[in-house]
Amino acid sequence: MATRIFPTAQDAEAAFYEALERADLELMMAVWSEDEDIVCVHPGGPRLAGQDQVRASWRQILAGGTRARVQVSQQVMIAGPMVAVHSVQENFSVPGETRSMPAVVATNVYLRTAAGWRMVVHHGSPAPGPAETPRDTPKILH
Amino acid sequence: MATRIFPTAQDAEAAFYEALERADLELMMAVWSEDEDIVCVHPGGPRLAGQDQVRASWRQILAGGTRARVQVSQQVMIAGPMVAVHSVQENFSVPGETRSMPAVVATNVYLRTAAGWRMVVHHGSPAPGPAETPRDTPKILH
Repeated sequence: MATRIFPTAQDAEAAFYEALERADLELMMAVWSEDEDIVCVHPGGPRLAGQDQVRASWRQILAGGTRARVQVSQQVMIAGPMVAVHSVQENFSVPGETRSMPAVVATNVYLRTAAGWRMVVHHGSPAPGPAETPRDTPKILH
Repeated sequence: MATRIFPTAQDAEAAFYEALERADLELMMAVWSEDEDIVCVHPGGPRLAGQDQVRASWRQILAGGTRARVQVSQQVMIAGPMVAVHSVQENFSVPGETRSMPAVVATNVYLRTAAGWRMVVHHGSPAPGPAETPRDTPKILH
């Protein structure tokens, strides 16, 4: 697995969405903590826990190669020295397609580890209503 | 608002589900942090942020008076000195009704504040598949 150090939770989050856009499983798993205490809920899906379940789900999701772009909006951050919680809305679009795709609300939790900041929780669920345009101003409370 | 101190994140979580079962808005809001940086996603709902949105949503949900019992299973805890993240499955039942209700997977985040442990994030989404029986053994990895 590629060793990448994420100096901040924002760096880890940027890499998470980069991995999603590039359908890069190794980068995706480099974002996640190597601990067994990791939790992932994909939109509409069950709660997955531990390395095996989380990796298998991303392998399946990324296997087809996504072409979707992801724009994150409405970010709310609860930031501490060792833990960061980001609440975001994920707005997907496929280049060349005008049809809007359903947005996702996500809770992302990052821990500061000896190897930089890593994701320990990703909980996504479908956002009701029309998708946001990427031009929306991010909402940062903190 | 009633002042209740929750010495641990587990105490805050127990009070959260007690408030849900008793449809007790004041207890519910006593569980939440008094900060503006709070986030709540109800199953199938949008991302709500801040005191006003979160309180209004619980007022609406609890207004009718719930009769449902909630059993929590499959708990995974990521516990630090100042932040605790709990991933759980919420299994609902109504006394006297045999029909099973859809389960919910929830990510609950608690912060240790000057006034004890308080909830800052609740993200719930429908769990696919049949609901669990309350007899399932909780899964605690940590």
